Amino acid sequence: MIVSMQEKATEEQIDAVIDAMMEAGVGVHRTTGASQTILAGVGPTASLDLGIFEALPGVLNVHRISAPYKLAGRAFRPEGTVVEFANGAKIGGNQVAIIAGPCAIENREQIFTIARRVKAAGAGFLRGGAFKPRSSPYAFQGLGIPGLQLMHEAAQENGLLTVTEVMEISQIEPMLPYTDVFQVGARNMQNFNLLRELGKIRKPVLLKRGIAATIEELLLSSEYILSGGNYDVILCERGIRTYETATRNTMDIAAIPVVHKLSHLPIVGDPSHGTGRRDMVAPMAKAAVAAGADAILVEIHPNADKAASDAAQTLYLDQFDKLIVELRVIAGAVGRTL
Amino acid sequence: MIVSMQEKATEEQIDAVIDAMMEAGVGVHRTTGASQTILAGVGPTASLDLGIFEALPGVLNVHRISAPYKLAGRAFRPEGTVVEFANGAKIGGNQVAIIAGPCAIENREQIFTIARRVKAAGAGFLRGGAFKPRSSPYAFQGLGIPGLQLMHEAAQENGLLTVTEVMEISQIEPMLPYTDVFQVGARNMQNFNLLRELGKIRKPVLLKRGIAATIEELLLSSEYILSGGNYDVILCERGIRTYETATRNTMDIAAIPVVHKLSHLPIVGDPSHGTGRRDMVAPMAKAAVAAGADAILVEIHPNADKAASDAAQTLYLDQFDKLIVELRVIAGAVGRTL
Amino acid sequence: MIVSMQEKATEEQIDAVIDAMMEAGVGVHRTTGASQTILAGVGPTASLDLGIFEALPGVLNVHRISAPYKLAGRAFRPEGTVVEFANGAKIGGNQVAIIAGPCAIENREQIFTIARRVKAAGAGFLRGGAFKPRSSPYAFQGLGIPGLQLMHEAAQENGLLTVTEVMEISQIEPMLPYTDVFQVGARNMQNFNLLRELGKIRKPVLLKRGIAATIEELLLSSEYILSGGNYDVILCERGIRTYETATRNTMDIAAIPVVHKLSHLPIVGDPSHGTGRRDMVAPMAKAAVAAGADAILVEIHPNADKAASDAAQTLYLDQFDKLIVELRVIAGAVGRTL
Amino acid sequence: MIVSMQEKATEEQIDAVIDAMMEAGVGVHRTTGASQTILAGVGPTASLDLGIFEALPGVLNVHRISAPYKLAGRAFRPEGTVVEFANGAKIGGNQVAIIAGPCAIENREQIFTIARRVKAAGAGFLRGGAFKPRSSPYAFQGLGIPGLQLMHEAAQENGLLTVTEVMEISQIEPMLPYTDVFQVGARNMQNFNLLRELGKIRKPVLLKRGIAATIEELLLSSEYILSGGNYDVILCERGIRTYETATRNTMDIAAIPVVHKLSHLPIVGDPSHGTGRRDMVAPMAKAAVAAGADAILVEIHPNADKAASDAAQTLYLDQFDKLIVELRVIAGAVGRTL
Repeated sequence: MIVSMQEKATEEQIDAVIDAMMEAGVGVHRTTGASQTILAGVGPTASLDLGIFEALPGVLNVHRISAPYKLAGRAFRPEGTVVEFANGAKIGGNQVAIIAGPCAIENREQIFTIARRVKAAGAGFLRGGAFKPRSSPYAFQGLGIPGLQLMHEAAQENGLLTVTEVMEISQIEPMLPYTDVFQVGARNMQNFNLLRELGKIRKPVLLKRGIAATIEELLLSSEYILSGGNYDVILCERGIRTYETATRNTMDIAAIPVVHKLSHLPIVGDPSHGTGRRDMVAPMAKAAVAAGADAILVEIHPNADKAASDAAQTLYLDQFDKLIVELRVIAGAVGRTL
Repeated sequence: MIVSMQEKATEEQIDAVIDAMMEAGVGVHRTTGASQTILAGVGPTASLDLGIFEALPGVLNVHRISAPYKLAGRAFRPEGTVVEFANGAKIGGNQVAIIAGPCAIENREQIFTIARRVKAAGAGFLRGGAFKPRSSPYAFQGLGIPGLQLMHEAAQENGLLTVTEVMEISQIEPMLPYTDVFQVGARNMQNFNLLRELGKIRKPVLLKRGIAATIEELLLSSEYILSGGNYDVILCERGIRTYETATRNTMDIAAIPVVHKLSHLPIVGDPSHGTGRRDMVAPMAKAAVAAGADAILVEIHPNADKAASDAAQTLYLDQFDKLIVELRVIAGAVGRTL
Repeated sequence: MIVSMQEKATEEQIDAVIDAMMEAGVGVHRTTGASQTILAGVGPTASLDLGIFEALPGVLNVHRISAPYKLAGRAFRPEGTVVEFANGAKIGGNQVAIIAGPCAIENREQIFTIARRVKAAGAGFLRGGAFKPRSSPYAFQGLGIPGLQLMHEAAQENGLLTVTEVMEISQIEPMLPYTDVFQVGARNMQNFNLLRELGKIRKPVLLKRGIAATIEELLLSSEYILSGGNYDVILCERGIRTYETATRNTMDIAAIPVVHKLSHLPIVGDPSHGTGRRDMVAPMAKAAVAAGADAILVEIHPNADKAASDAAQTLYLDQFDKLIVELRVIAGAVGRTL
Repeated sequence: MIVSMQEKATEEQIDAVIDAMMEAGVGVHRTTGASQTILAGVGPTASLDLGIFEALPGVLNVHRISAPYKLAGRAFRPEGTVVEFANGAKIGGNQVAIIAGPCAIENREQIFTIARRVKAAGAGFLRGGAFKPRSSPYAFQGLGIPGLQLMHEAAQENGLLTVTEVMEISQIEPMLPYTDVFQVGARNMQNFNLLRELGKIRKPVLLKRGIAATIEELLLSSEYILSGGNYDVILCERGIRTYETATRNTMDIAAIPVVHKLSHLPIVGDPSHGTGRRDMVAPMAKAAVAAGADAILVEIHPNADKAASDAAQTLYLDQFDKLIVELRVIAGAVGRTL
């Protein structure tokens, strides 16, 4: 950490800051310039709230030098994390994975129809929501565990793995038998109690970036899971909130190479939520793969216009088939398979 | 709702949209212009996902006309909601309420010292966190229920009411005996399961705006609580995330009069989180009262620089005393008391 | 346009709004619902300031239905605009164009070295700034017209076309002999006087999106040029300002397919400004081509670390060579050439 | 400046960075930690593009310590700037100034009617636009110099000073005889050539914050004017662009106390553009004064609904009278007059 003192800071103030830093277990190197004094703190600063120092008299500002996360940092595992599943599927390796399914599981016929098409397209992961958090209390809220059982059955029949969102600590236990990847939604990215519990299980977690979260905050959230001993964390870029309204969110494609630089964790691109528009899903899926995404997560439905939720951003099954063919070519163009 | 068709939409497409609207229980009025057809939908559209219509062939865009919330709307209670407490205190009336206390309850001495000063300043509400959600898993996480008991005792001794954050459904029950106002933090504004449970209790809820939430989304979230029969909801503006970094968040003071126009619910200004900077708390508290805030929520600590969390934005007790005096004058200038 | 009246609007208020609409030359269709009246306006609304109606008593809100731009709209030229140059080069057709060069023209050796490499890589356009708008008044401000002459000479020698930024109306005339494409920078996207003048010349204009401009505003700005009779407008996505700081700007890749849907104008991706980081230029250039960009604009320099401006986002010449090879493969994967 | 090296940076890389810093005229102090080396640069760094250092191999990140502006900094004139006019009026002192008038000057009757009311209300400054930059090329564009002459005449008759927007260098000269304060609009905040020219004149400049500008960028822009020798710069907060759409812009009230802390320049609040809604002008004007604004700029019109531009945010004259009375009370509450 670096503490820059104000130009008119007194020796007394400087000494008080040095004391506070040492009290926090940080070694201090002082640089006295013509007009300004700078204090460099060396030591275990990752867990410190730098605001404490910013508020001391005579301090101009405080900068963190080292990243506030450790286990999520690239240096922890320079070769990169590959999440491996019992059936041999992987997320994070050379092959770009495909995760597809409806926003919400609606009934047996719907999820079985989709599962067969997901399999036929060569994808390995079936996704579907059993608990639907909706902005309006008057909208469809999901089938719950029975829905999840249906999806699990459909996945089993087709040799697929299931990905589904967990919203509460109390849901983890009943979801476990039917869930291969626990998805944490954007709204729960900073639900630290939930993250901590997911750090204790031994199933992969797909952690979505919050709608207003920085990449650093996303990595800090992953640290909650990693620090519990669960190293199978997969990150997901799904669009952030900006002033632009042409798309529902602004998909921050650059987050993909930025995460690859800062962290060893794989990252998925979600063009369905990233844009909120069916006609933008294909170009943004291609962009994500071209930028290095380790997987693509996409919402599909046999009768997309009548989907119980997220209809506007859901692909028809034929559109999905076509997209997979196109993505395979893009993956090849960046030296990967799909 | 208004559906605008594309200029080249066919009669077949228009008919399909009309059918879909009627199927959803909406009456349709058609306007055929020289170049464009417009379909006005009249009826119970508040619970509809308009995305369904946006995705239909030939549709240009869909606008919601009526607000998607009902119970939170100003029309539901034009005279405005006043939340009343057993001891006669109120939030929402002519008197501007003051809610003050530390970010985190740390120990008996700290919270009793603060409680006495809060009382002495003439404020009615003591706030303090027992469960602290922190971005970093390596930081202080709060004292839990024992901390809450301490705060409740300190409040009782001084005739104050307690305000504290609930983060999980499972916490509601044990918190009930010690809590006068349940605060929902910004990160939980869209934790709909939690909101729904809070709709079933009979204690007021202080609902903070999410860091990237629109005012409409804040009102929709309040609807989850209201629709459970709990009408004592207090909203709170605590800063939103923008590109500006001079302050931790950008406090959207205009949200105060906007909420007053759209809704009957009282709204609190939180300049501590709104700015993240101790030296900005006083001017922004004054601005909030001048703009019509029904209460001010402010973080204070006898040893602010050493506060266990949020040190940078916490006022010293003397600064708090001074602020109250200044706010009393501003309240008078807008025709209110404090 | 659609005017939605408040639920409690009086007949008098509704009549006043109808009068105001008709006075503005708009035909009115009225829909009277159970609780609300809606007025649909049909006619020449593109030039109307809808704020006028929003402010009338009894009005809830006003929505624009038709796009406020005309000449820039896809319907005006459904087949898409291809900007053609005298030497046969094109922007907007099947071939993805490459525009490369230094941020600032520094001296003869620099620009000639770069021009040769641009040519060797197979690119068609040489860019370089002669007038540099800098946030700080104490930084390098560019060589002016003499610099432009150098670039023009270097371009001529290598069969390249020049792209350079115009910042003032008074610069157009002296720049004309040396400029093949006039670039309008992000800061001037709404300098309407400049745009209007550029509508009168007969050279293509590359219009960059403002750092906080919506896509609709970008298209409205292009309308100023188009309405002067200059139809050779090329749009450019170069990143927008958001709360994320990992990259200098957030490159809105979705703007590329959105522009292709809304407009007939070609659109260029600028990953140098889009990210502000050299190590992010290649992945984001690939993402832009995968999403359908008609050209890529990239900053390069033989001694990138010592570039007089934008050093942090400038590629070395070897990095540029490598990028071109990679982009050629991506272009092929989306059915285009490069 | 502080350069933080990556953990794995080599001695060679560190030496190269030290060389680059010294070459740039900066003295270097080195701190070698257990895992990381930090280089503190002391000297004339305000004019340096720090991106140059960020791009060097082995560098993790670079922070600026001292503010990149000098003349605008609070330290330059700790007592604060008071802009004084020939007629005794001031902006920046104890008295809060009022600047009012129509968005656009429309005709003699309009501007004279307004001038009389501005005077009667006790305000000192008459504003009005002669050149109107409009997003759409099909909207009213202003009366030009003849309009300005009308406003000047109306101001003279009433002992008022004129405030009007300059959009082009070429307009400065003809505007001079009729203009007491040159306003630079949000879109021109970074039109550095214009700012430089305004630095050469000897009339005050009211510089509006750009719609996506940080406070630091606003101060840097003011530096262009100050460094030309024109010290009479008045800053203006007029709303920034965020994701919230309930108001046209989000008025960043905190910018007022932040500017007062960082700079000696006075700052004006503009609630008309800050909100874009007539019904929000009064509460936000009060908030701005409560937060310490040195003046309020407000759009008024005798027939606000029919104003040629900005109708939706323009106050009727009676609303203006009422607002002035209310603001006088708020000013008193914060120890100022009006």
